[in-house]
Amino acid sequence: MLTNLEHLGLAVPDLAAATALYTKLLGTGPYKTEHVASEAVDTVFFQVGGSKIELLAGTSTDSAITKFLEKKPAGIHHVAFEVDDIEAEMARLRAEGFILLNEAPKRGADNKLVCFVHPKSAGGVLVELCQSIAAA
Amino acid sequence: MLTNLEHLGLAVPDLAAATALYTKLLGTGPYKTEHVASEAVDTVFFQVGGSKIELLAGTSTDSAITKFLEKKPAGIHHVAFEVDDIEAEMARLRAEGFILLNEAPKRGADNKLVCFVHPKSAGGVLVELCQSIAAA
Repeated sequence: MLTNLEHLGLAVPDLAAATALYTKLLGTGPYKTEHVASEAVDTVFFQVGGSKIELLAGTSTDSAITKFLEKKPAGIHHVAFEVDDIEAEMARLRAEGFILLNEAPKRGADNKLVCFVHPKSAGGVLVELCQSIAAA
Repeated sequence: MLTNLEHLGLAVPDLAAATALYTKLLGTGPYKTEHVASEAVDTVFFQVGGSKIELLAGTSTDSAITKFLEKKPAGIHHVAFEVDDIEAEMARLRAEGFILLNEAPKRGADNKLVCFVHPKSAGGVLVELCQSIAAA
């Protein structure tokens, strides 16, 4: 099962402007920034209780975030749920008929193994499963 | 400040189908259903760690959810953050330049006082502030 709403990923066109905006909105500043070369994104993370807000800006025209913002306005890109055993959850969801976007877990931001579930099989929501590598 | 990602609200065209889908996805069933007459919505809530997933279906053509689904595909409708003192947070956000969609807190689902922040002032995201009435 999915054990926590680990983070909400927001696609933003201007990372500095969005960081300033979300610092005001949340009433607290970010705790880290991270470039994820494999996804061609720059990220900024805020902690809100037991969950995080991840701002994502594309760093190349190939980035999924850049492509998202070509088709849709800025806003929520994905919702990530924490799992204890990502391979077991991937097998469980495959058996339930969900379409997974990667065959094996891949390395994501924030020291996580991640796998995405296709929005078409999840009610229009891009769902990410993530497992902390430290806990693996 | 906003103290927790309290829930994520998903607009769905068919509440029974979405409940079945999210039960499979999350690996756990809903803990409550609630009709919110003031918003013309039926809701189903799932607990995931310290946050909730709220499925929302409109019960009239006037419902904000019905109108949302006329313009957009099913998916994430809003993100709700818990606050300790909603009136103080509303005043803080107004002073920061955010546009609030209600002048005073109103009664929402799940025994909460709520206030919405206009997506145009919050990076394209419909943000809800919510305070538990029991904690007021």
